[in-house]
Amino acid sequence: MCPDEIRILHAGRYLRLLSRNGWEYAERVHPQGAVIIVATTDDDRVLLVEQYRVPIQSRTLEFPAGLIGDQTEFADESLIDGARRELLEETGWLAARIDRIMGGPSSAGMSTEVMHFVRASGLTRVHAGGGAGDENITVHAVPRTEVARFVAARMAEGFAVDPKVYAGIYFLDHDARGESSGL
Amino acid sequence: MCPDEIRILHAGRYLRLLSRNGWEYAERVHPQGAVIIVATTDDDRVLLVEQYRVPIQSRTLEFPAGLIGDQTEFADESLIDGARRELLEETGWLAARIDRIMGGPSSAGMSTEVMHFVRASGLTRVHAGGGAGDENITVHAVPRTEVARFVAARMAEGFAVDPKVYAGIYFLDHDARGESSGL
Repeated sequence: MCPDEIRILHAGRYLRLLSRNGWEYAERVHPQGAVIIVATTDDDRVLLVEQYRVPIQSRTLEFPAGLIGDQTEFADESLIDGARRELLEETGWLAARIDRIMGGPSSAGMSTEVMHFVRASGLTRVHAGGGAGDENITVHAVPRTEVARFVAARMAEGFAVDPKVYAGIYFLDHDARGESSGL
Repeated sequence: MCPDEIRILHAGRYLRLLSRNGWEYAERVHPQGAVIIVATTDDDRVLLVEQYRVPIQSRTLEFPAGLIGDQTEFADESLIDGARRELLEETGWLAARIDRIMGGPSSAGMSTEVMHFVRASGLTRVHAGGGAGDENITVHAVPRTEVARFVAARMAEGFAVDPKVYAGIYFLDHDARGESSGL
């Protein structure tokens, strides 16, 4: 069997475009992966964030999320520490407890990106949130039983919603084996 | 306000790497979007597919899925027709009924890709499945109540699982508003 031929089609500042035996895909330059945070407050509200996304030129509604170790000062952070940092940056809530649910490829046909889901609880409000730099994030705290309706209503208004939001809604009540998460 | 500066960093055969005001992202050359098919047989088994994915060099477990209009002979197909074709190609099951659930960006921070979920029912077995060309897909038909446990067991064995699989598990029983799908 011949060794794989991997070619770098372009090396960007944040992304690389690669070809492996003719199969093209994108790779983040900082590849520790991304984390999506399913967080509930003590009064059972779920934290969602609204923001503008440049590639799709649209506002999105998402669970809080971010990249692990993508900034020099946090280069060695763990998944759990990165999730806690991103949740605090974006929403202003600090989590006492964070548990990993599962992780896997976010788009295995076109990217090497890996995406983890975590469940956050024991939240304390520290500041108003909004994100780092120019992220300009709006935070929503939605009663757990209203989340799917809230998301669908925003879609009807024209917000872009990543289908993974519905994985997050599933993980509000279940672990990766489908058992009740007890949270 | 200045017009956006969009630069093509690399134009591949299947993907482009772009930069918009310094924000890098990937775009498929055929941009009609992708579709993920949540299909149940009349005896309430759920169709999952196992295949090797080049970018991540790993076998994955996924719902059947594919790209709309990415081949010349199907360039003008609708989302529903594309979903029916991909389900048949990959699994060998023909769906009498396909309903769109929702769609949105699959990775809004690094890609323009749009991903739709559909629900397929009224299935008839036509052939053994396996995919087009060299896709080499293995089909699993898993009882509905066992799906999450089945997926988690494969993850424990080393399969890569896209978190969107759990959106599919949610859509087995719910629509995008969180109501019972009645299927």
